[in-house]
Amino acid sequence: MMKSFQRFPKTPSQFLRAIENEVWKPNEEMWPVFTSPVKDSADLWKTDNLPENLNYHTEMKEGVVYVYADKEAAARGEPMDLSYPNLEVFIDDMNFLLALIAKGPVKTYTHRRLRFLSSKFNVHEMLNEMEELKELKNNPHRDFYNCRKVDTHIHAAACMNQKHLLRFIKKSYRIDAERVVYKSKDETLTLRQLFEKLNLHPSDLTVDSLDVHAGRQTFQRFDKFNAKYNPVGASELRDIYLKTENAINGEYFATIIKEVGSDLEDAKYQYAEPRLSIYGCSPEEWPKLAKWFTQHRVYSPNMRWMIQVPRIYDVFRAKNFLPHFGKMLENIFLPVFEATINPQDNKELSVFLRHVTGFDSVDDESKHSGHMFSTKSPKPEEWNHEKNPSYSYYLYYMYANILVLNHLRRKRGMNTFLFRPHCGEAGSLTHLLAAFMTADNISHGLNLMKSPVLQYLYFLAQIPIAMSPLSNNSLFLEYAKNPLLDFHQKGLMVSLSTDDPMQFHYTKEPLMEEYAIAAQVFKLSTCDMCEIARNSVLQCGLSHEEKLHILGKNYHEDGPQGNNISRTNVAQIRMAYRYETLCYELDLMAEGLKSPD
Amino acid sequence: MMKSFQRFPKTPSQFLRAIENEVWKPNEEMWPVFTSPVKDSADLWKTDNLPENLNYHTEMKEGVVYVYADKEAAARGEPMDLSYPNLEVFIDDMNFLLALIAKGPVKTYTHRRLRFLSSKFNVHEMLNEMEELKELKNNPHRDFYNCRKVDTHIHAAACMNQKHLLRFIKKSYRIDAERVVYKSKDETLTLRQLFEKLNLHPSDLTVDSLDVHAGRQTFQRFDKFNAKYNPVGASELRDIYLKTENAINGEYFATIIKEVGSDLEDAKYQYAEPRLSIYGCSPEEWPKLAKWFTQHRVYSPNMRWMIQVPRIYDVFRAKNFLPHFGKMLENIFLPVFEATINPQDNKELSVFLRHVTGFDSVDDESKHSGHMFSTKSPKPEEWNHEKNPSYSYYLYYMYANILVLNHLRRKRGMNTFLFRPHCGEAGSLTHLLAAFMTADNISHGLNLMKSPVLQYLYFLAQIPIAMSPLSNNSLFLEYAKNPLLDFHQKGLMVSLSTDDPMQFHYTKEPLMEEYAIAAQVFKLSTCDMCEIARNSVLQCGLSHEEKLHILGKNYHEDGPQGNNISRTNVAQIRMAYRYETLCYELDLMAEGLKSPD
Repeated sequence: MMKSFQRFPKTPSQFLRAIENEVWKPNEEMWPVFTSPVKDSADLWKTDNLPENLNYHTEMKEGVVYVYADKEAAARGEPMDLSYPNLEVFIDDMNFLLALIAKGPVKTYTHRRLRFLSSKFNVHEMLNEMEELKELKNNPHRDFYNCRKVDTHIHAAACMNQKHLLRFIKKSYRIDAERVVYKSKDETLTLRQLFEKLNLHPSDLTVDSLDVHAGRQTFQRFDKFNAKYNPVGASELRDIYLKTENAINGEYFATIIKEVGSDLEDAKYQYAEPRLSIYGCSPEEWPKLAKWFTQHRVYSPNMRWMIQVPRIYDVFRAKNFLPHFGKMLENIFLPVFEATINPQDNKELSVFLRHVTGFDSVDDESKHSGHMFSTKSPKPEEWNHEKNPSYSYYLYYMYANILVLNHLRRKRGMNTFLFRPHCGEAGSLTHLLAAFMTADNISHGLNLMKSPVLQYLYFLAQIPIAMSPLSNNSLFLEYAKNPLLDFHQKGLMVSLSTDDPMQFHYTKEPLMEEYAIAAQVFKLSTCDMCEIARNSVLQCGLSHEEKLHILGKNYHEDGPQGNNISRTNVAQIRMAYRYETLCYELDLMAEGLKSPD
Repeated sequence: MMKSFQRFPKTPSQFLRAIENEVWKPNEEMWPVFTSPVKDSADLWKTDNLPENLNYHTEMKEGVVYVYADKEAAARGEPMDLSYPNLEVFIDDMNFLLALIAKGPVKTYTHRRLRFLSSKFNVHEMLNEMEELKELKNNPHRDFYNCRKVDTHIHAAACMNQKHLLRFIKKSYRIDAERVVYKSKDETLTLRQLFEKLNLHPSDLTVDSLDVHAGRQTFQRFDKFNAKYNPVGASELRDIYLKTENAINGEYFATIIKEVGSDLEDAKYQYAEPRLSIYGCSPEEWPKLAKWFTQHRVYSPNMRWMIQVPRIYDVFRAKNFLPHFGKMLENIFLPVFEATINPQDNKELSVFLRHVTGFDSVDDESKHSGHMFSTKSPKPEEWNHEKNPSYSYYLYYMYANILVLNHLRRKRGMNTFLFRPHCGEAGSLTHLLAAFMTADNISHGLNLMKSPVLQYLYFLAQIPIAMSPLSNNSLFLEYAKNPLLDFHQKGLMVSLSTDDPMQFHYTKEPLMEEYAIAAQVFKLSTCDMCEIARNSVLQCGLSHEEKLHILGKNYHEDGPQGNNISRTNVAQIRMAYRYETLCYELDLMAEGLKSPD
């Protein structure tokens, strides 16, 4: 994690090192770098402060971008002194973990520890609930409503609620009916013509006919769910309203997102981290997305951007858009390397990248690839058949390139990226294992229910999990069965997120709806809710400066020291309980390793 | 029901009469009368259109108010030709029903019919869900968001959410710190002095320290829940902010309610029926409440008023505020009779009563009275010991007086009142039986789960039930176990209501929160939600004119004829299913009675 400029909590690191009789000190130089907020919003779009071009040479080798001083160095095979991944080590470690999660005694041990953690929390609650409440009552000015909370997992194309989209469509028609909004090979249509072709009039539209909300029909049907992105079932409307590339340069989509951003600013205490897509089908995607972003000034101080990469190589390959998987990786990463090396030649993209805080990997996890990642797996450049690589394969190569990229960007004084894939929503347990090894934090994590070993590892490493129980309720798991409460009680670091307000939520404040329902169904206390809100800030891509402001000056410290109750409204009793509990578990293992048996 | 100007659905009446070979026709003269909306809001407060005084004489006899032409008629024992209740008949009927709900074969029969209704709905859903959805999609302009919905059960003293109350307290302090707001025997305090006495500063207050939200501590503890009405645990603050009678004549409370009303008007499609308290401790309560209402112009077109009477005779008797239970009934009803007879002498109260649509009976149902209502029970005037009468006793005497009152008011061309008690939230099954005999509709009804016979009777008679699963979740029953979904599927006429947003809800739109959570947890379809919303309008005290507007011109017809999909967004397929199902059950019984065995 450290090697890739991602976060790893101090306490476990210290215990791990102590086992080897070493002293571990955090190396602040290895922290992730986020773009600091600007005072003057004009500075956001400034390009005269971009660093000089360096004209390094880049080349993808075995799925990883290598950076060379020049072509000659490349010919000599002498890459620059960055950090490069080692596939053998990764596969070794992966195999070690694979064996670990299958080992009987380890399963028993972790299962028991987890049960203990549950019971311990229940005891803590019975003993200290009123004391925690007292702390909060005595904490002036701060309550759950004015604690900052971050929607840690939300897709830009579904970040508005259904009613908002409906209103926008109607408004656009009132103003823009005669505007050319749609171009395909065969036709050019105005908004009026398009709706005529669809045999619809926008003023008749309702949320029912819009039909973007997930219903009972979507449960266990990710395929049907994806179709819900098409308003009125018409892909043309998705193209016009929910895409960055279209006949109107994504203007409507940008406007909707800015409206969502401005609602967040009004609500004041809510932030969101919307995902925008890069598909890896063409290297032009990046400059186009950056152009859309800068041209429409898609920015809100209450939003941080993420790039999501759908795992759909197989679709592109089948259509012959791509010769092999390596090309997809190249399309995803090379433009970013280019912009990092030669910002002057990639001004819009360089500006956009300042606001990007990480990468996400998305798709239906329940699809099984049938491929088992090993040292013998074809290299990305050799992966030219139509089958999709496995989840682990995708994750490793995303991670590998982010690792190199972050070193380069850090050297150039630029912000770095976190890797925050969707993981454990469905499918195989190996997904959670691959993410454990490569990701700063994950979205969903439901399947941790199914493996005590992995669940315990996620607990020990305090890997943040952005959970979306309302989304799960429509797709994979009934609300009351969601493990959110269980994970939270055991001390896993969970946050709450909406995933897709357009499909799942009813009210004007989707994140508040998400918290309210969790609070009601799981009977969360104020302290629970504020702890989850605090987790969301720790997990997110807000800058160091913003986190200082939101959480207090020691926020990066573990335990009660790192908590400022007047900012977070989390009781110190709770913080102390969490810290002692984590240390106790770590200590137990350290002691076990020391003992001769 | 008809006799007391309350509603009874046509279809069951027709079947009941048909069994006796009679034809039943609805008598529109026996419908409840609600005040029509006014065009000019000044008309709301006009008193020059009040009818003349009639100077009738009233007297309470055996707990029921009797109306006489004059004192002489009273002396002769010749009451006016209204309708008076018959206690013997009531007790006979009650005993009949008591025997019925305990009868083995009846239990088996109703249990089976209810199971059948559940399964039948599941089949209906599997067969027709997509067809229902198609109907809704083809229904222009109308969706769940712009279907009118009524919060059929909400207490005025908790109708704002916690954040709203907090904001109001802070604002009042900024503006009014030096105002005298509190007077007791011993002291007169300004707002500043009061907060100093409480050792608080309003600007430090948070929703945590306000402490009005129900938490885990309130589950199964109605007593603790009631204490939550005291902000910061201080009854002085309840007195200032949530009472109609205090040193500032209830100005703050009126302002808060008007703010809630204006939020409802902004939301446009939401209505509420807040309850105001009459305790029956003194006959002055009515004129005082009416003065508060008219003086502060507490009115919103989106609100209809109800009077709640707490069942706390025992508390008043113990403090010697009342000599016997009859006095309490007198204090509750005589002033209303007086205002009905002599409006010119009771102008404010007469104006207020125009906006009152019914009575509610409230208190903790889990308290057991130990008293069994029978013809041998002491009459209210004889009920002078400290024990509280039973729930049934309370209900009968409320009903009895409302019956006489409605006849008198109808004669005078005034609006009538519905009886809509809290019932079946907890406690004995006999509560549901008493309400079945006396009430237009009820709030809660959870205990119908426990008696198949009563549940089936409520289904057959289509008695509306205002359910509040979020309230139950904090007090009596976990959300996932709430019978709302089960009742709805079987075809009981359920609506959704908030009960106490201050204690239970998190967002700015409590009723939407209630619907959203039910939709999410129970996976309700749009058709389900719109059906529940339609039920809420049918159940509520909005006027005939408003219901015509909201539901369409045939709303009082049963079955698909009574539904206007373009207003209600309820599929005709659903309406037909409900109607056929009800008729089938009624027919089954009629046939059974006809057969010689």
